[in-house]
Amino acid sequence: MRRFIVGVMGAGEGATESDRQLAFQLGEAIARAGWVLLSGGRDVGVMQEVNRGAKQVAGSLTIGILPDAETTASEFVDVQIVTDMGNARNNVNVLSSDVIVACGKGGAGTASEIALAIKAGKPIILLAADAVTASYFQQLSRRVEMATTPEEAIKIIRAIQN
Amino acid sequence: MRRFIVGVMGAGEGATESDRQLAFQLGEAIARAGWVLLSGGRDVGVMQEVNRGAKQVAGSLTIGILPDAETTASEFVDVQIVTDMGNARNNVNVLSSDVIVACGKGGAGTASEIALAIKAGKPIILLAADAVTASYFQQLSRRVEMATTPEEAIKIIRAIQN
Amino acid sequence: MRRFIVGVMGAGEGATESDRQLAFQLGEAIARAGWVLLSGGRDVGVMQEVNRGAKQVAGSLTIGILPDAETTASEFVDVQIVTDMGNARNNVNVLSSDVIVACGKGGAGTASEIALAIKAGKPIILLAADAVTASYFQQLSRRVEMATTPEEAIKIIRAIQN
Amino acid sequence: MRRFIVGVMGAGEGATESDRQLAFQLGEAIARAGWVLLSGGRDVGVMQEVNRGAKQVAGSLTIGILPDAETTASEFVDVQIVTDMGNARNNVNVLSSDVIVACGKGGAGTASEIALAIKAGKPIILLAADAVTASYFQQLSRRVEMATTPEEAIKIIRAIQN
Repeated sequence: MRRFIVGVMGAGEGATESDRQLAFQLGEAIARAGWVLLSGGRDVGVMQEVNRGAKQVAGSLTIGILPDAETTASEFVDVQIVTDMGNARNNVNVLSSDVIVACGKGGAGTASEIALAIKAGKPIILLAADAVTASYFQQLSRRVEMATTPEEAIKIIRAIQN
Repeated sequence: MRRFIVGVMGAGEGATESDRQLAFQLGEAIARAGWVLLSGGRDVGVMQEVNRGAKQVAGSLTIGILPDAETTASEFVDVQIVTDMGNARNNVNVLSSDVIVACGKGGAGTASEIALAIKAGKPIILLAADAVTASYFQQLSRRVEMATTPEEAIKIIRAIQN
Repeated sequence: MRRFIVGVMGAGEGATESDRQLAFQLGEAIARAGWVLLSGGRDVGVMQEVNRGAKQVAGSLTIGILPDAETTASEFVDVQIVTDMGNARNNVNVLSSDVIVACGKGGAGTASEIALAIKAGKPIILLAADAVTASYFQQLSRRVEMATTPEEAIKIIRAIQN
Repeated sequence: MRRFIVGVMGAGEGATESDRQLAFQLGEAIARAGWVLLSGGRDVGVMQEVNRGAKQVAGSLTIGILPDAETTASEFVDVQIVTDMGNARNNVNVLSSDVIVACGKGGAGTASEIALAIKAGKPIILLAADAVTASYFQQLSRRVEMATTPEEAIKIIRAIQN
């Protein structure tokens, strides 16, 4: 009965327009595939857009893992999990996801999630990562894959699921 | 879009037959009311039965906040959140719930959740609590209410929601 | 080389004058015994006084486990551990202590610590507890002992240590 | 009364001989400077050696932030803080340190600590980092400095302290 969960990580305030567009498309594609979307749950950047994308699809389910009760959650999050763990919640995001997609450039928070995901042995997809990020994380783990479009990311997730 | 979440806490291995029956009925009633059920997610005691009750209802949603990746989750949990926080996850259970029901006698884990819920200022319902438990927690907070049946608990939750 | 750690828990803002006096004497006695003092580290109530007591003794060592970086720590804490876990830090307090003393009446936070300590199988001493608190926790565990003075508490700790 | 804390992070099982030698020298130098040493507390790799180095110095103080109660701590750790948070404890390491030194190559765990330290706005020193690691983290933050020897690291810490 357990549902398959795709975690999407990415920049908040620092997200670029391109990161946000990718996030929206990715969220919609994850929901269409029938997967649960998990994110950091805030109402900015990649978190906001990936949830907004997912909620275009009827019957979609979005989970937001919030740092604390004071944080404003995205209106597109169905279920708010309040951790009061600050950035240590990134480890909860990672451990609760069957696969993690880092969407766009990302900052230090996203970097910590990729690193914690490698540490936990989870499969990771870097979507539209720059060359320095790609080479840094690929030397740390063989389970880090690259995708340049949301469609490519979905294809890799399907392969992981099967 | 945010869903209303009812957290149900109670004994694992130490649950009595009566605790388990109450949990099953409570889970079914929560799901019928259209609320999300949140629990510690394990496959024993109150956690197992409350989720099994909820999954009798089509369209129900059950969230399990697991202590770590090694713990066996209830097969009646739809979405597994893996915290790797051990018993500190009890604080996540409490903070993520709009109202908390302690079902049956409970042990030290349930006691910690009631105490953390009081600390967080959350409304709490003690369902079928013994006299010592009731008097201890009622002196700590005015937001602790008593119920003797699942129906009574549901009625109190409705009053809290409105 | 590992040092023996005594965790002291108790009310913050809600501490009575009597709780605070007991805490001061207890802190001094713990330091004289050569044990490390661990507490929630804040600058109020039992936390403030137990650390102030300990620092009357040359060579004493006080550790404060703080909820977050914004909290004001007691000036009598030597080593500040910042968890950013809010009240879930109570589990860290408990797991890091060889024995836990709940000093005075205590509120919901102290109740959660006693409960988490029982869950973790740690020895606990209730110092100057009221009758309701004593009967509630003694029914949950056989490792909960009572003391009426700091000297009695120290005697029990010595017995646990040997 | 608060003591200045230097957090040292680095590989466990994956540490090279060179990483371990640097860690030993760094630990000794930190202790000689009168600072408290904080680490992940385990008995392998950089964690073991940095604590062993510090305990060459009389009066030194070493704090180990352990993932859980089952982990074997380094015998050179004076005060064991047991978090039961798994890798999320890395956030505690970072938040509790006034400055963080990543010693040697490091793996995913160290990467997560550097990232969390950047996120927390803490000053970070990469000691003997390779070029890819250096360029990745320096693009994420301006508070990441490089050192090639323990002496250089100590000099940077002194500048931060003053």
